[in-house]
Amino acid sequence: MTETADFPEQPTPDGWLSERELAAIRGRLPLVYVDAVPVRVDDSGDVVAVGLLLRVNGAGEMTRALVSGRVLYHERVRDALVRHLEKDLGPMALPQIPAAPQPFTVAEYFPTPGVTPYHDPRQHAVALAYVVPVAGDCEPQQDALDLAWFTPEEACSEQVQVEMTGGQGYLLRQAMAHVGRLP
Amino acid sequence: MTETADFPEQPTPDGWLSERELAAIRGRLPLVYVDAVPVRVDDSGDVVAVGLLLRVNGAGEMTRALVSGRVLYHERVRDALVRHLEKDLGPMALPQIPAAPQPFTVAEYFPTPGVTPYHDPRQHAVALAYVVPVAGDCEPQQDALDLAWFTPEEACSEQVQVEMTGGQGYLLRQAMAHVGRLP
Amino acid sequence: MTETADFPEQPTPDGWLSERELAAIRGRLPLVYVDAVPVRVDDSGDVVAVGLLLRVNGAGEMTRALVSGRVLYHERVRDALVRHLEKDLGPMALPQIPAAPQPFTVAEYFPTPGVTPYHDPRQHAVALAYVVPVAGDCEPQQDALDLAWFTPEEACSEQVQVEMTGGQGYLLRQAMAHVGRLP
Amino acid sequence: MTETADFPEQPTPDGWLSERELAAIRGRLPLVYVDAVPVRVDDSGDVVAVGLLLRVNGAGEMTRALVSGRVLYHERVRDALVRHLEKDLGPMALPQIPAAPQPFTVAEYFPTPGVTPYHDPRQHAVALAYVVPVAGDCEPQQDALDLAWFTPEEACSEQVQVEMTGGQGYLLRQAMAHVGRLP
Repeated sequence: MTETADFPEQPTPDGWLSERELAAIRGRLPLVYVDAVPVRVDDSGDVVAVGLLLRVNGAGEMTRALVSGRVLYHERVRDALVRHLEKDLGPMALPQIPAAPQPFTVAEYFPTPGVTPYHDPRQHAVALAYVVPVAGDCEPQQDALDLAWFTPEEACSEQVQVEMTGGQGYLLRQAMAHVGRLP
Repeated sequence: MTETADFPEQPTPDGWLSERELAAIRGRLPLVYVDAVPVRVDDSGDVVAVGLLLRVNGAGEMTRALVSGRVLYHERVRDALVRHLEKDLGPMALPQIPAAPQPFTVAEYFPTPGVTPYHDPRQHAVALAYVVPVAGDCEPQQDALDLAWFTPEEACSEQVQVEMTGGQGYLLRQAMAHVGRLP
Repeated sequence: MTETADFPEQPTPDGWLSERELAAIRGRLPLVYVDAVPVRVDDSGDVVAVGLLLRVNGAGEMTRALVSGRVLYHERVRDALVRHLEKDLGPMALPQIPAAPQPFTVAEYFPTPGVTPYHDPRQHAVALAYVVPVAGDCEPQQDALDLAWFTPEEACSEQVQVEMTGGQGYLLRQAMAHVGRLP
Repeated sequence: MTETADFPEQPTPDGWLSERELAAIRGRLPLVYVDAVPVRVDDSGDVVAVGLLLRVNGAGEMTRALVSGRVLYHERVRDALVRHLEKDLGPMALPQIPAAPQPFTVAEYFPTPGVTPYHDPRQHAVALAYVVPVAGDCEPQQDALDLAWFTPEEACSEQVQVEMTGGQGYLLRQAMAHVGRLP
């Protein structure tokens, strides 16, 4: 779960946490996250491609990532989805946010590896996971080097899976199982 | 479940049933249906309006209906959704067919009233129910007099509910509960 | 969302928060909750009764409540469900925790009324909501005066709904819509 | 989808189809099916084992199968689940039928291979798929040689997957993805 700082240029709104306060809390409380699997669909809704962000992580390794980020205080889940999708895919992505809040699964990122298939050394995060069709033009933003589209088969291939960290490759395969496109 | 005849002007494709054969089967076997609740959503995916078809039924009464119809032999559920939505809302409706086949519920229409909340005197139908955002221009087709958009509150009101038959009003309220817009 | 203190008799485990620290965080960060609707089902899985806890709230009013509580640091969602169900229904309740983490909905309790159908003046909580059949003997624990079983019709009646607070009556009706027992 | 004859010892109830009539319809209309993945769960609902039936198919090959069967005329989906689970696992299996009719996916078995991941040369079947915990004693019935329990890892292994036919191995992996136990 590589996440860019939330609203880094803006002063912290009243009631929101500074990065320092957040760091202190990260080891004490599970945080609410949203994970989005951006997809292209055909006219019948069938998934034809999955979008993955290319980033360089702290260790200088290339990694592929889903759209993922924290739900802020007093922010609705659907607004957090819009915000993170726009932040990562650009303002012209036209994401089709699900009408219903029911996620396809809940990804529990634990700081200890092995408790669940998901792992985040920084924190315990509980992520509501959604498949989100995007209809518009997507461009990598901020810290992402690229946004690449893969077929479901490619995205689930060993080659791409090893570039995903923290169990996001696992979550991607769950998403493909959910939409009937697991290879 | 008022349904217009499937492809009435076309000859029956190989393997499909004539209306007479279908009538004979209707009392013997559950039929596979799709039910779609057409909605308008805002940029956050929140449902702002529900589309209902206005029809005159066999008894000469005005009724409001969801989009509903049979899944044909060798037709995928998602293709049946596209076909029925286009048939009822027109070719410019631009329905966003769900990427995943998981319905929000399954509506079991029984010929005997009271077994389930759904009733269809003609047949036993098992309908996969989906909430489908439509982004384009919708126009009532064929046998529908009108397509009207209601707020979720209006659509669940007693006034509109009494105009819906066979338990479709119930299904509509389930859909609104699913998207968090039940009044 | 009336919640009894988590593990009140025990010293706070390492990494968990004291009640004072939690109070400070409550106004800054959304908390992860689980909401469970305890139900009795027949052999076909059909819901025949809903269990509601009777409590006296801070204002001295009788209220009916679902099972609800916080997910702790390093606790799985399914373990939080077990813990809160046992805490509220007793050790012999034999809850059938869902095999899948997918909730039937996500209830977003905001400190500001009206943003969503759910409201919690103390905090912003994001609750994963599950319908949980309980097969064993249930007894009200700790701060609950009673545990009463209602038919779905009774539980959704105006009389019972007015005794539920913070939108839990709404969530209960959503649960009944999900299981096909909304009146 | 190997299915034993429905109610073979009983005369066909009024409105139900003889095997000959059914055979004639199988090439004309999609049939409604239920697919159940029988599982053992621990106290937290976590899946620890998957039950698969061992059968000899028409070609004399050993195959592993899920519980699967037709929904009859005027039969509720939940009653069809009970009936098929009892028929295949015995009267003491104590299946926990889901309270909600929402399946985790819909498996569309086509007579033509390759349209979907599922295939049934006899017919077009639309199967509502459920994960069903069974708490009691299971014994293979009728045409099954054995009922074997596998860990999720074993059940998804190549060795077991090749013994499953018609896409049931695929559906099993989807079920494991849904419960968070896909290897």
